[in-house]
Amino acid sequence: MQRAALLVRRGCCPRPPGLWGRSQSSAAAEASAVLKVRPERSRRERILTLESMNPQVKAVEYAVRGPIVLKAGEIELELQRGIKKPFTEVIRANIGDAHAMGQQPITFLRQVMALCTYPNLLDSPSFPEDAKKRARRILQACGGNSLGSYSASQGVNCIREDVAAYVTRRDGGVPADPDNIYLTTGASDGITTILKILVSGGGKSRTGVLIPIPQYPLYSAVISELNAVQVNYYLDEENCWALNVNELRRAVREAKDHCDPKVLCIINPGNPTGQVQSRKCIEDVIHFAWEEKLFLLADEVYQDNVYSPDCRFHSFKKVLSEMGPEYSSNVELASFHSTSKGYMGECGYRGGYMEVINLHPEIKGQLVKLLSVRLCPPVSGQAAMDIVVNPPVPGEESFEQFSREKESVLGDLAKKAKLTEDLFNQVPGIQCNPLQGAMYAFPRIFIPSKAVEAAQAHDMAPDMFYCMKLLEETGICVVPGSGFGQREGTYHFRMTILPPVEKLKTVLQKVKDFHIKFLEKYA
Amino acid sequence: MQRAALLVRRGCCPRPPGLWGRSQSSAAAEASAVLKVRPERSRRERILTLESMNPQVKAVEYAVRGPIVLKAGEIELELQRGIKKPFTEVIRANIGDAHAMGQQPITFLRQVMALCTYPNLLDSPSFPEDAKKRARRILQACGGNSLGSYSASQGVNCIREDVAAYVTRRDGGVPADPDNIYLTTGASDGITTILKILVSGGGKSRTGVLIPIPQYPLYSAVISELNAVQVNYYLDEENCWALNVNELRRAVREAKDHCDPKVLCIINPGNPTGQVQSRKCIEDVIHFAWEEKLFLLADEVYQDNVYSPDCRFHSFKKVLSEMGPEYSSNVELASFHSTSKGYMGECGYRGGYMEVINLHPEIKGQLVKLLSVRLCPPVSGQAAMDIVVNPPVPGEESFEQFSREKESVLGDLAKKAKLTEDLFNQVPGIQCNPLQGAMYAFPRIFIPSKAVEAAQAHDMAPDMFYCMKLLEETGICVVPGSGFGQREGTYHFRMTILPPVEKLKTVLQKVKDFHIKFLEKYA
Repeated sequence: MQRAALLVRRGCCPRPPGLWGRSQSSAAAEASAVLKVRPERSRRERILTLESMNPQVKAVEYAVRGPIVLKAGEIELELQRGIKKPFTEVIRANIGDAHAMGQQPITFLRQVMALCTYPNLLDSPSFPEDAKKRARRILQACGGNSLGSYSASQGVNCIREDVAAYVTRRDGGVPADPDNIYLTTGASDGITTILKILVSGGGKSRTGVLIPIPQYPLYSAVISELNAVQVNYYLDEENCWALNVNELRRAVREAKDHCDPKVLCIINPGNPTGQVQSRKCIEDVIHFAWEEKLFLLADEVYQDNVYSPDCRFHSFKKVLSEMGPEYSSNVELASFHSTSKGYMGECGYRGGYMEVINLHPEIKGQLVKLLSVRLCPPVSGQAAMDIVVNPPVPGEESFEQFSREKESVLGDLAKKAKLTEDLFNQVPGIQCNPLQGAMYAFPRIFIPSKAVEAAQAHDMAPDMFYCMKLLEETGICVVPGSGFGQREGTYHFRMTILPPVEKLKTVLQKVKDFHIKFLEKYA
Repeated sequence: MQRAALLVRRGCCPRPPGLWGRSQSSAAAEASAVLKVRPERSRRERILTLESMNPQVKAVEYAVRGPIVLKAGEIELELQRGIKKPFTEVIRANIGDAHAMGQQPITFLRQVMALCTYPNLLDSPSFPEDAKKRARRILQACGGNSLGSYSASQGVNCIREDVAAYVTRRDGGVPADPDNIYLTTGASDGITTILKILVSGGGKSRTGVLIPIPQYPLYSAVISELNAVQVNYYLDEENCWALNVNELRRAVREAKDHCDPKVLCIINPGNPTGQVQSRKCIEDVIHFAWEEKLFLLADEVYQDNVYSPDCRFHSFKKVLSEMGPEYSSNVELASFHSTSKGYMGECGYRGGYMEVINLHPEIKGQLVKLLSVRLCPPVSGQAAMDIVVNPPVPGEESFEQFSREKESVLGDLAKKAKLTEDLFNQVPGIQCNPLQGAMYAFPRIFIPSKAVEAAQAHDMAPDMFYCMKLLEETGICVVPGSGFGQREGTYHFRMTILPPVEKLKTVLQKVKDFHIKFLEKYA
C-alpha cells in the first residue's frame, strides 16, 4: 500500500522538486555564483525534503483520508468543471462524518452552543429555558463568562463533573471522579497524548503497543510517529470479529523477542469491524492485561452505537470495577469518548474526554503539564461534550423533541446496519459480518487473481485497485482494507452506513452491480 | 527551576506513589501471593511511572501554566473556603487571556459564530445582514452546511481563501496562495506540526532549533518532546530586546559542534519581551537564514498588537518577497497567526493558521498526511479565524460598531503599555523596556543576595521565590523569568497588561509596594 499511496500522493502535487544538489561551498560564494550563472527564479535544494524530514513522520500512513480521498477530491473538481462521468456526485462513504451525510444536528445541543456563543440570546424568548440553564452554567464556569477564554488544561471543571456523573449513570453507579476526567480535542487527541506519555526505550526495550487488526489507523500512525513498536493481534473474522485472548497471548509472546509490550488497545464497539464485545470477553482481556502488566486503552467512542438486539455495550471501567479489588485497584486504564459519534455526530467541534483509572498521581501531574503546553482543548468542543453527556431529561422542556431526534438517528442507523449486512451477503464474492455496532461495514471481498495481477501491474494493493475502480466507475469512495490491516490474502473495504436510508440503498445497489461486473471482467 | 517545579507539582498530588517493586515472578504466582498476603486494596507497582514514562515528555517544562499557576489555583480554593488572606482575589496576570480579564468579545465575530452554530437564526431580524452573509458563506463550504462536519484536514477552502486575501492586503499586494495556508488548532498546533516534520537525526546530526532567550516556552517544550536540540540566541536587553545577527552567528557556530542547526524561530512582536523588530533587522535575519540554510519559523501572532508610534509590524513574508528572487524563491518560511491575540482575544476557540513559503511539494503532501491523522482543526475555530481575517469593511452595516470596539481594545492596550512601562521604571530595582507590542511586560528585577540565599534554601530559583511571595502576599500571579530563559544572574517576570486600566493601576501599585517591602526585608 505504501508505494501506491506515495504514487497517488505525488500525482496530486504537480510542481517538480528542487533540481540542484546542495553545495558545500561557503554560503556567500555560493550566493554570488547563483546570481551570476543561474536564471532569476533559481532554486537551491531545500532544507526540508523527503530525505531530510523526520523519518518517523514519513512512515506515518492514514488511509481514512489517504490517496483514495485525494482522488475523490480530484473527481469532484472534474465534475464541477463539467467533465462527464458515469455518475453525477461523489459519495464520501470513507469516513464517519454524520452531518456531511445529511444527518441533522440535535437541536438542543446547537441551542445551548448558540447561547454560549452569543449570550445576548439568553434574553430571547425563542430559546427554551432548559437550554438557557445549561448555557448559563457553562458560561459561569468560563473565565470572564466567555467561551473565548482559555479553560484549565484539563478542561472546564463543571463539564468534567458532568462527564463524571454521566459515567457513573452509564455504569450503574460505579463512581467516577472528575479529577480522573480530561477533556480533549476529540478522542484522537486523548489517545495520542496517553501514548506519548507511555512510550519509551530503545532497541529491544522499545515500547510495544498491541492493536487489533483490522484497526482504526490513528493507532498505527501514532505508533509510527512516536517510534514505538506496533504489535498486531488479529480479530477473528470467522467469529464475527471477536477478540480471542489466545491470540493476544500469541502476539505478546512473539513481541517479547524484539520489544517491551506495555500497552493494549481495544476498540469496542469495533472500528472498522463493528463487533460489540461480550462482558465475558472484556473480563478475559482485563485479566490478561493484569497478568501481563499491560496498560489498557479502551477506545469506546461508539458506546451509543449498538444495534444488534443481542448486544449491549459494557464499559471496561464497569467490568473492571466488578472484578474485585486486585484488578480494580491495579489495572491501569484510559477510556475515550467523543462528540463526533453516537447520535450527535458533532465531528467538527473536536470535543472528547478521557477517563483514567489507577493512574499514578505523579503521572497525572505529568499529564496536566503536557496538556498545558497546548493550553486547553477548544472550549466550544468542551461545551458540546457537556451536552452529549448531559442531554435533556424527562420533565425538561426540550426532552420530547430531543428524544424524538435521538431515536430517529439511532433507529435509522439500526435499520441501515441490517440492510447493509443483508444486501452485501446477497452479492456473490462479498461476505459481511453482522454490524452489531459503530457505523461501518467491513465486508470481505473476493478479488480474482487476474485483478490481483492487474493491481500489481499498477503498483497497487489489490483492494486499493478495487476501491479506485469503484470510485472511478460509481463515484463511491470507500477505504481499502489494507489501510486498516487484514489477514494476508484477504481483502476488504470499509464503508460508512451514514447516508440516508434511500441513498444507502442506491449506494449498496451500485456496489453490487460494480462488484458483479468486476468479477466478470477479471474472471 | 526544574527541581522547584517538581516540588510544587508534587505538593498538589497528595496520594502516595506505589509502594512495592515490580516482581519478576510469573504473573499468576504473583497474583495469588498478592491475594493471600496483602490487604484488600493492595497495589502492585504501576506500569506507568516517572521512571518508566517517556523521558522526553518528562523533560518538558511549561512555565506559563506551571507551579505558580497551580499555587494560584490552591489560593483561590482557600479564598472560596473563607480562609483569610491579605487580598480578596487572585489576579491571573500570568497568561494573555483577554476575555478572562474582562475584555468583551467583538460583537460581529460572535454574531457570525452564533449564526453558523444555529442556522435557524438566519431568519432572525435581530442579526445584521453582513453577519448573515458571512455565516452563509462559511456554512455553504461545510459538509451538510454544518459546523459539525469534519473539514478538509488543511481547513475549509473558503476560509483559506479569506486568509490568503488578508495576507495579500496586509503585505501591500504581495500575493498569498490559499494552497499555502493551513488552518490550525491555535498557533501552538501549527508550530508543533512544522517542528515535528523538521526534526530528525541522532547524535551530532540531531536537528538544532534556534530560539530567542527569553522565549515563549512552547518552543522549549516542543523541542524537548521531539528530542531536538535547543540552541539559544540571546536578545539584547540593553537595546530594547533587539535581535542582533552577530549573536545568531555565535549561536549557530557553537551549536555546530554538537548538532545540526536547521531551524530558526523568531517571535515578532516579541513574547515575553514585547519588542517590535525593525525592517532592517528582519532583512538581516532572512539573509542570515539564507546564508546558513536555516528554515525560518516566524511567530507573528501579535501582528495586530503594536503600540509604540515609532514601530510598525513588518511580516517576514513581505520582507522576504522584497529581497529579490534569490531569497524569495529559496528561503523556506512558515508564519503563524491565531484568533487568540490581536483585538479579538478568542483564545478558547483554538483557531489559527500558518502560511508556508517555498515548502517542497512533497513535503506539502507529507504535511497534509500528518494533519489528516487528527482529521481537522476545530471547525468553530476555523470560522472564528475567518472573522479575524475578514472583519466588516466600510459600507457594511456592522462596520461602525466593529471599528468602535476594535479601537477601544487597541487604544486601551496602547495606554496600558505606556502606563506599565512608566510605573515600573519609577520603582527602585525594577527596569522595564518599552512595551512596543504584544501584551506583556517583562521587567528586570533586582533580587538582593539575601533573597537569593533564601530562595536557595527553599530549593527554588530566585525569581520563582520572588513570584511565589508576590502571589502569596498580593494575589497577583505572574511568571518568573526563569520559565522563559534569561541571562545568568538576571531576574525578570512576565506580566500581562490585559486587566482593565483601573485594575491594572492597582496591580502595578501593589507590585511596587511589594517590591519595595521585599527589598527592605532582604536588604
